[in-house]
Formats: sequence, structure tokens, C-alpha cells
Amino acid sequence: MGSSENAVGGGRTVDKGVDFANYFCTYSFLYHQKEMLSDRVRMDAYFNAIFENKHHFNEKTVLDVGTGSGILALWSAQAGARKVYAVEATKMSEHARALVRANNLEHVVEVIEGSMEDVTLPEKVDVIISEWMGYFLLRESMFDSVICARDRWLKPTGVMYPSHARMWFAPVRTGIGDHKMCDYQSGTDDWYNFVDETKAYYGVDMSVLTKPFSDEQRKYYLQTSMWNHLHPHQVIGTAAIIKEIDCLTATVSDIEKVRSKFSLSITTENTKLCGFGGWFDVHFRGRGEDPAVHEIELTTAPSIDYGTHWGQQVFLLHPPIRVIEGDNLSVSFLMTRSKENHRLMEVELGCEVQLKSGNLLAPFKNKYYVE
Amino acid sequence: MGSSENAVGGGRTVDKGVDFANYFCTYSFLYHQKEMLSDRVRMDAYFNAIFENKHHFNEKTVLDVGTGSGILALWSAQAGARKVYAVEATKMSEHARALVRANNLEHVVEVIEGSMEDVTLPEKVDVIISEWMGYFLLRESMFDSVICARDRWLKPTGVMYPSHARMWFAPVRTGIGDHKMCDYQSGTDDWYNFVDETKAYYGVDMSVLTKPFSDEQRKYYLQTSMWNHLHPHQVIGTAAIIKEIDCLTATVSDIEKVRSKFSLSITTENTKLCGFGGWFDVHFRGRGEDPAVHEIELTTAPSIDYGTHWGQQVFLLHPPIRVIEGDNLSVSFLMTRSKENHRLMEVELGCEVQLKSGNLLAPFKNKYYVE
Repeated sequence: MGSSENAVGGGRTVDKGVDFANYFCTYSFLYHQKEMLSDRVRMDAYFNAIFENKHHFNEKTVLDVGTGSGILALWSAQAGARKVYAVEATKMSEHARALVRANNLEHVVEVIEGSMEDVTLPEKVDVIISEWMGYFLLRESMFDSVICARDRWLKPTGVMYPSHARMWFAPVRTGIGDHKMCDYQSGTDDWYNFVDETKAYYGVDMSVLTKPFSDEQRKYYLQTSMWNHLHPHQVIGTAAIIKEIDCLTATVSDIEKVRSKFSLSITTENTKLCGFGGWFDVHFRGRGEDPAVHEIELTTAPSIDYGTHWGQQVFLLHPPIRVIEGDNLSVSFLMTRSKENHRLMEVELGCEVQLKSGNLLAPFKNKYYVE
Repeated sequence: MGSSENAVGGGRTVDKGVDFANYFCTYSFLYHQKEMLSDRVRMDAYFNAIFENKHHFNEKTVLDVGTGSGILALWSAQAGARKVYAVEATKMSEHARALVRANNLEHVVEVIEGSMEDVTLPEKVDVIISEWMGYFLLRESMFDSVICARDRWLKPTGVMYPSHARMWFAPVRTGIGDHKMCDYQSGTDDWYNFVDETKAYYGVDMSVLTKPFSDEQRKYYLQTSMWNHLHPHQVIGTAAIIKEIDCLTATVSDIEKVRSKFSLSITTENTKLCGFGGWFDVHFRGRGEDPAVHEIELTTAPSIDYGTHWGQQVFLLHPPIRVIEGDNLSVSFLMTRSKENHRLMEVELGCEVQLKSGNLLAPFKNKYYVE
């Protein structure tokens, strides 16, 4: 194949046109940008990270990877940057350019339309800033582009904004599982009617498709992780860190497979383990020899007052398991990228429940899709 | 560029991978196939067209373009076809193959996975059957593939199923327009708050994006035609035929632009013209010298009892216009394919209202998107 291809993600070949159709197009809507710009937790974290650490920006060169409407580039300029390169793959770049002009920063911020992998800058930069985090941190695989930018364009003394990222996982209780199971079951019942009617009225036996239909529905209703705002009370045990990323040193091969084993303790009396919640946080710490003055955290953990547009991802168990305080879960977690779309993820989750009494429940292994 | 490209639709270049991501992927879900297979109007029409005209199928060779789950291919075989080629671009082909086997027709039906444009058949066929109709007939531009199949593979004496298609347009009243206008206005109000807050809290002036945001919202809420089940009472005047297609002779250039001028008379006393409804019908008439024994019609017109999954497309007017019986509308209609995606459409609608009193209202011209 020709020029519409590009190697992305550990040498896997990705058709850029297809990737654009599947992925980037979402980001070309102002409606979507506005949603992200209205996420106060996200906005405050980046705003404070920049303005409480102006020494990282003042008189410095900055690269904003995936600038969208341009907000991080504008703040970087307002914090005193000498030059900001703001790279954006979609037509949103035109709005970013208008915004730069309207805010009188066109002498500092240069908006470049193109994908990060293709862009050539006239110089290396002191800071790479980017809001690259997808659901459960790595969905969208946008950090690949940040890594690419860092390896090509960050000075050896440069700083990453954010500098660190972590994925979290915790046992949860939730009623959504029951709803999903209902949807799944009524879908299946409906299918049997459909098979009967198609045979009776139209003389074709569809029953051979019962299993594939059921598999498709199971994947959709039961195996696809769900976006949710969990209340902190729904977290029924300790949360574990699945993965820690140092944005200055991480490679694509460090993140394209996330493998971890960890323990979770139930800390709630007499409850139901309905599944697991996954979320992330990132930190702005600067660099070891050039640290932040004020370290800022952006967390997407369950929270009453500080929800984000990322929410949490919920991985359901069917049926739920009755647990009590002191029960212990040994979890093995493996997240890989979907073969069909490198921006989506698949999770293999193994779990052993060791009851407080000392007894072991039969271990289980589930497959999930982060879509 | 390389092999991922193909000329489709009047010589315009379409990236096949992108087209697959944008379009075909929907059809690879059994859930979606089931929806179409549960549309009784659609099913009855094709079923009757085939089984009440067995002479077109008995001992004949048939090509089913876009077979999906394979239903039309199976019926053709059950009606006595000697051989049926069932072409399907998506992985649904595997399910179709299983269905053929389960219904003991593997000696007749050959399922071929591939796009129609690339497939080579060992012989020409007597019948081309296809369910190619999208919303408002031409959305999806799938008839292009049927034309390609016809020009390459139909015998000079061959028959098209369906043989004819028509697009319809009529004045309607509906309450949806008010809802959409509310959504649009609250979106706009929300934007102004957003601009104020972003300036106050984050020091960035977003007001330069007000116009593009408003344009984006207007397109989404007010200019995109909507899927709807119209009640026949909502049609307030005569319906006009915009376009007639003879499936045996139509070319891509005949359908990639649909231009028409026509008159519509209001037939309802004292009502509001809130917009226009668009729908289609197709007929199975066989061929002049080899006609159907029983001519079958499949219509998607507003109906109380016989709704289809296609419904109707509604093009809204803002604000509605007060009209009375005897008022007359002179409409100029132009539908073209979207530059960004040849399977989506854009409509330019001009309208003059001549009141029964003889007075003319100021003519208007609206742009719509069929997405």
C-alpha cells in the first residue's frame, strides 16, 4: 500500500485515513471541545500546573501535542513562553488559530495542522505539554504521539507536562450490572421470537446464528467496560495501582501491553462485589533536576464533588459475588490493544477470591473490551 | 496513493479503508441485520416479489449485491434458482455462509466476501437482486455498486429486483422543529455562559468561536434532516415525485445529483407548514419484455400500520409558516453528495409560497444535510 500508511505503535501498520475516520473526527467538533473545556477538574489542574510553575514556561519553547482549541498553548504563552508550537491533526487547528489571534498571542503561538508524527519543528523545545489521556488513561493510544514528539523534539533537559501517570483499579458495587443483564436477556428472548417468526413466515431457519448473535450481545452488554460516575461509597475495597508511567522515559512498548498482578482487600462489611472500577491520575512534577515548585495532581478517581468527563470505567462481574470485610482478591490484569483498532483495548482479568475464613472461591477469568 | 484507493461515484476517488470504517462496519453486526430482517414491510415486499414471480428465478442465475445475512440469496435459491452469487463486503459473509449451509442450499448459493467492484463472477446472471436503499433512497450511495454489478454481470435480457425506484417529497406539520429549536437555543445560551466563565476563570477569550460554534449547532439541530415516523395526518398537502429511477438503465451520473422543480398544494385547512417529509418507494416489475406476473410495491410513505425501519426524513422550516388549503408551494430541489463522504448528502431547497389569495410570500432557500 501507499502513502496513506504509517507505522504506529510498536511497528504495527495503521492506515492513517481510516484512523482519521475512526478517531480524529470526533475532535473536530467544537461541541466536543467545549465539553472538555468545561471539565473544571481538568482545566484547573492544567491551569494551576502552568501558572504555579511559570519558571518552566517563562522565556521557554513549548510544544503542545494535540492542541485542540489551543487552550494549553494559550496558557503556556500567557505564562511567558517565548514560542509555542501547537500541533493539531484536525481542522480544529483553524479555530485554534483564530483563538490565538483573538487573544493577541500570534507572535508566540504557532498552530501547525498535521499529525505529530509528520510535523517538523525548526528547533527543539523545553517543554512538551499535552492532554493525551483517554478513558482509563490509555484508550485512544494518544500517548504514542507524545512519546514520538518527546523523542524527536524535547531537549535533553526538557520537561513533560504531565510528568507522571498512573492507572488504578478497585472492587466496586453497582446496580448497572443487573440492568445490563436484563438488556442482554431480553435481547436473547427477542432473538428466539425472531428465529421462530422468520422460519414461520419466511421459510428460513436462522437458528444457526443464535450463538454468534448471543456472543455479539454478550460482548456489547456484558463485556464492554462502561463509562460511569462512581460514588466513592461504591468502592468497596482498597484500590491498587496497575501501572505507573514516567512520561519522560516511557516507550510505546512499555504501554502497549499493561500486565500486572495485585491484591485488593474488601473493606466494606457484607456487600456484593459487582465488578471493578478503573481510573487514572496524572501528576505535574517537572523533572528531577528541574522540579515543579507546586506539584499538581489531576485525578479521575470516584469523587462526590470533583467528577471529570473521563468518569471511571466499570468492568462488570456476572453474577456478583457476596463478600465481607477482610476478604481478599488476587487479581491478574492484562490489557492489550485491539487488533482491529489500535486505539481500543482488550482486558483479560483473572481473579481469585480468598475469603476471610481462609477458603478459596473458584477462580475466574473474564475478557473485557474498552471501546 | 496505493491499492487502498478505488474510483467510486463518477470518478471521485474514495479511500476504501476509510469507506469501510465509515460505512460498512455497521453492517457487520447481527443486531443491525436483525433490525432489517424484522422490518415486515421490507421482508414481505422482497418475499412476495420473489415467490410471486418464480419464473424470474426458476433455473436462473442470480446475483445478490450486498447480501448481508443472505436472506435474498436464500429466497432466490428456494424459488428455484440454479445458482446464486451472494456478494458481501463485510465479515457478515461468514454468517451468511453458515446460514446457507444450515438451510441446505450450499449447492446453489455461493457467498463471496468482497466489494462488488472487485468481484469476478464465472458467468453473467439473469437476475440482480439487492436491497440497496438508504434513508431517503440514496443515502449510502449503495446503488452505485448495483449499477456496477449490472453493467458488468447482467445478461442483456436480465432483470433487476427491484426494477424501479422513486423519491417523494411532501409538506408536513410536526412538533419536532420546536424541540430542535429549543435544543439549539439552550446550546447557544450555554455557550455564552461558557465564554464568560472561561474568560473569568482561565483568562482566555473564546468569543471568536461563537459564530463557528453556533454554525456547528445550527447544522446539527436545524439543518440535518431527521429520521421520523410521520403519521399520514402530518402530511398537509400533495406529495410530489422528485426522481424516478429505472434500475435497468440508470447511471451513476443520473443519481449523484438529483435536481427537480415541482409544485405542492396545501390540502389541509388552516395549518402550519413545519417542513417537508422525504421518502421513497421501489417497484418490482421485471423487465418490459419479461414482466413480473405480480407487480410488488415497497413503499416507505407515512403510514399508520406499515412503518418501515427507513421511516421518513424530515427537513425542518424555522419558523413554520401559517398556510391554508389551496396555498401552493413552488419548490426547487437539489441533492448532491457530500464532498467529505460520498455516502452522505446535501440538499439545497428553494421554496416560493403562493397564497390562495394570490399573494406571494418572500421566497426562501435552505441548506440541509442528510447524515
